Amino acid sequence: MNTFECIKSRNSYRGKYKDEIIPKADLIKIIDAGLSAPSGCNKQTTSLIAIDDKETLRKVLDVIEPKVCDTAPALICVLSENIYAYRDKCYAIQDYSAAIENMLLEIVELGYASCWIEGHITDTDRICDKIAKILDVPSNYNLVCILPIGHAIEEIKKPNKKDFNKRSCFNNFKNME
Amino acid sequence: MNTFECIKSRNSYRGKYKDEIIPKADLIKIIDAGLSAPSGCNKQTTSLIAIDDKETLRKVLDVIEPKVCDTAPALICVLSENIYAYRDKCYAIQDYSAAIENMLLEIVELGYASCWIEGHITDTDRICDKIAKILDVPSNYNLVCILPIGHAIEEIKKPNKKDFNKRSCFNNFKNME
Repeated sequence: MNTFECIKSRNSYRGKYKDEIIPKADLIKIIDAGLSAPSGCNKQTTSLIAIDDKETLRKVLDVIEPKVCDTAPALICVLSENIYAYRDKCYAIQDYSAAIENMLLEIVELGYASCWIEGHITDTDRICDKIAKILDVPSNYNLVCILPIGHAIEEIKKPNKKDFNKRSCFNNFKNME
Repeated sequence: MNTFECIKSRNSYRGKYKDEIIPKADLIKIIDAGLSAPSGCNKQTTSLIAIDDKETLRKVLDVIEPKVCDTAPALICVLSENIYAYRDKCYAIQDYSAAIENMLLEIVELGYASCWIEGHITDTDRICDKIAKILDVPSNYNLVCILPIGHAIEEIKKPNKKDFNKRSCFNNFKNME
């Protein structure tokens, strides 16, 4: 699969996953893709914890309410440090978002499904902090996102998108439809 | 080139570009990659303007001081709208960062070089606003990043990166080196 095909076939999956063991080599390749993303001033503010141990996985999934990705056989937890790139400028959100996108693409390339789960765990009930506690994450890291990894057993649907010509144009905004 | 190879061979390029015309089909493919990125609650907060018209390109590059990507034969300008996903939650930074990473990968796949230029144009001197004015961008959009596109004529260098095992581990943060 070339990169363009991979980009075009990535979609968020919110259904059930096949019960299986994800090979460690696949998880390492997904982590490698994530850590290969660029970061503002090369500050490398993103770190990752892969969860494939059944007991840890169960503990983490159990603190997520309402349930999402409850049948995922593996997870990647995305950690972010608010390191200044220069003066008061911090590009940590940009950094982890690029890392997440790389991982989502590599997950697709390896034949798995996933979903960027951020808002659900970072809302006012701070599920992210409960997950961070289970994983002994130090307080200078924010757990900002989880990515389930596994084979989809339901249909993966494409979202409706605005027309290409309403979101892009050449040389001047007046050429936008 | 498969996706993993593409991810691993992407590097920020800050050198000079070959003087040439970038085919419109390539720019459209890069835009398509960008607009195919996920967005929080599918709000599609990211829009794109490709610049390949020589006169417009010159005007835009001339307002950037100190100079960066001054010889680029084409640019993609990234626009972002602060649309709420729900309540007071906005994922516009995440959205445009995922779109940028997709475009950087597609740029590599097509054989071009680029660099994520954000901090330099969004700093206190607000170069981004000068570029937005040239492109007649309405005030509800923030111009947040430019991506030069072209063939590199200098060496593309890899940055130093922290060890893989210091940024990732399995199942518990205590397994981080």
